[in-house]
Amino acid sequence: MSADLVPETRVLAVASHVVYGHVGNKMATLVMQSMGCDVAALNTVHFSNHTGYRQFKGTRATAEEITNLYEGLCQNNLTDFDVMLSGYAPSAAAVEAVGAIGQDLQRKAADRPGSFFWVLDPVMGDQGRLYVNDDVVPAYKNTIQHADLILPNQFEAEVLSGIKITSLSTLAEAITTIHSKYSVPHVIITSVQLSKLTTPATLPTPTPSTATCSNTNQNLLTVIGSTTLSTGEPRLFRIDVPALDCFFSGTGDMFAALTVARLREAVFNDYDAGLRDTKSWVSKDDVRATELPLAKATEKVLASMHDVLERTIEARDAQLKATAGEAGVGTEETEVKKEHLRRTKAAEVRLVRNVRLLREPTVEFKAVEWVE
Amino acid sequence: MSADLVPETRVLAVASHVVYGHVGNKMATLVMQSMGCDVAALNTVHFSNHTGYRQFKGTRATAEEITNLYEGLCQNNLTDFDVMLSGYAPSAAAVEAVGAIGQDLQRKAADRPGSFFWVLDPVMGDQGRLYVNDDVVPAYKNTIQHADLILPNQFEAEVLSGIKITSLSTLAEAITTIHSKYSVPHVIITSVQLSKLTTPATLPTPTPSTATCSNTNQNLLTVIGSTTLSTGEPRLFRIDVPALDCFFSGTGDMFAALTVARLREAVFNDYDAGLRDTKSWVSKDDVRATELPLAKATEKVLASMHDVLERTIEARDAQLKATAGEAGVGTEETEVKKEHLRRTKAAEVRLVRNVRLLREPTVEFKAVEWVE
Repeated sequence: MSADLVPETRVLAVASHVVYGHVGNKMATLVMQSMGCDVAALNTVHFSNHTGYRQFKGTRATAEEITNLYEGLCQNNLTDFDVMLSGYAPSAAAVEAVGAIGQDLQRKAADRPGSFFWVLDPVMGDQGRLYVNDDVVPAYKNTIQHADLILPNQFEAEVLSGIKITSLSTLAEAITTIHSKYSVPHVIITSVQLSKLTTPATLPTPTPSTATCSNTNQNLLTVIGSTTLSTGEPRLFRIDVPALDCFFSGTGDMFAALTVARLREAVFNDYDAGLRDTKSWVSKDDVRATELPLAKATEKVLASMHDVLERTIEARDAQLKATAGEAGVGTEETEVKKEHLRRTKAAEVRLVRNVRLLREPTVEFKAVEWVE
Repeated sequence: MSADLVPETRVLAVASHVVYGHVGNKMATLVMQSMGCDVAALNTVHFSNHTGYRQFKGTRATAEEITNLYEGLCQNNLTDFDVMLSGYAPSAAAVEAVGAIGQDLQRKAADRPGSFFWVLDPVMGDQGRLYVNDDVVPAYKNTIQHADLILPNQFEAEVLSGIKITSLSTLAEAITTIHSKYSVPHVIITSVQLSKLTTPATLPTPTPSTATCSNTNQNLLTVIGSTTLSTGEPRLFRIDVPALDCFFSGTGDMFAALTVARLREAVFNDYDAGLRDTKSWVSKDDVRATELPLAKATEKVLASMHDVLERTIEARDAQLKATAGEAGVGTEETEVKKEHLRRTKAAEVRLVRNVRLLREPTVEFKAVEWVE
């Protein structure tokens, strides 16, 4: 029964909750549960829906409420987590509260190296724009030095490194800086459009190339990862995947959740059986970038995401077609709004009926070593 | 891929959330998702853990917060639910707020009979004791008249019917009263220990009898269900299952969530294709009790529960054995408390790695007609 499940893994997932749809913990919890992880879900906000709808209702947890929930776990001896995945927190104080939880779990596991691993998604913004308060940035800068793996997007990597990513060399520089400045052993920059940086004449062809969304199937999205060497230098790999030119909310959370499961699987399957008992699961220096558990995990993560998002596009298009006549007789403004809501709803990630694709993706992507 | 999934079903699940473990919506959401349902989860409390630990931290949603989240769904056109499952609400006002949501969804679906179905679990108490405020009882009494199916346990059935269940005849009387007093078309009383009422000399043997827990494998637990006839009289069936003499938190939520999925499946598979377009899915009078979709659904629900709880008992016993030496050197009081926490944690339902048993149970139970 458990052939396609990852090793038993207890995860504390700290992120947002939405009643409807799949983002934040609503996404991450189901993804990790589908992979076989036992998930404790500490929700940092309680919203009706994701903010892409442009309107939502609900409440945010205060830093005190977040801390209080964790203290409830502590007093009942319910803190034997193998992994923490921390995502969106609604204030600087909340980021600090989550950071304190991560550090407390690290202290509890201090005499058992490798028994606790913290994946931190520094949710701050995207596409050149912060969508959190300014004071969240220093809160993250003080926190991520404790994490084992961080998952910034291109913009967040720029914010953290202080380096504007305009070329392949500045990209490598940003990762090197994140490794050294924050002592973070593992980094994945979750989406870089290299085509916007350079003309990537020598990109390997993804296998198989199955992107079918709109007219952009020539575009590639690149994910860059690195596990530090003992010198502090990066050990870089890249994976190119067909870009699906469609905006889906929650894909960052899906990426993070899949990474938790697949990284733990890769570490447990690593030829170096001692790796799982090594602090932060940092492979020995003679392990090539493409042989890193981080690289092997990311390959599978991207394959699953590609499959689920392809199904989502199919379902979205069918739903948009089926509901095309629903525009009513309102003012132009209300019709524009209705149409936005219709399209946003249609683009919700189709997770529930595609969970098998998380465990058994049909496509395959390969990491390649990236020597800048 | 979807061979073992129920028909596509959008559920609004309103119940409690706990960070750790599986009760309330944390249980119901994963159960229904595993069956293929798309679940919108509106959480009525945010607790660290279930109350069986005897201590917990967290917050309760107010009635206004519950209403507000629903209004967030309404303003974004996210209310096209096929089913609502409502469970624990933390106050009388919260019960009324949830009731108003159910009625609003019914109004929205009024011109499409059978397109919306409301399963209500009137969580009030157990074993002769209320564990909610007294004013929650009249709040439920005013609400359940709108539900399509209610799932009281024996005590809650007594509270709602005003009839003390001391015999088979008073049990039948309680169900008849619930049908008539509240116009609820479907009722399942989720656990009756008939052995405490009478000596059930003529009970059919469950197939197969696989209860293995402690020394009680001679005991049976009986579930009684009924779908009303057009006369208002009950149409009673019973299913006897081996009692697992172990207390697990969240089993009521597991029962309710499985019932949502299996009832919808049974109605869609019913030989009467028109049933799904019939208000409240009430079968014609010539359908025998054992042929009711409610009976067929409950058979599968109980089979899955039996399988998952058997696995839970195995895992619990292994965990208790593995952690047996963990008692430390505290006062007698702290040792007693530690032991309680250890046992409570060990008894958390093992859901994540047994979800296949929800879809494909290995045992089979059969409903029998119950003519009192």
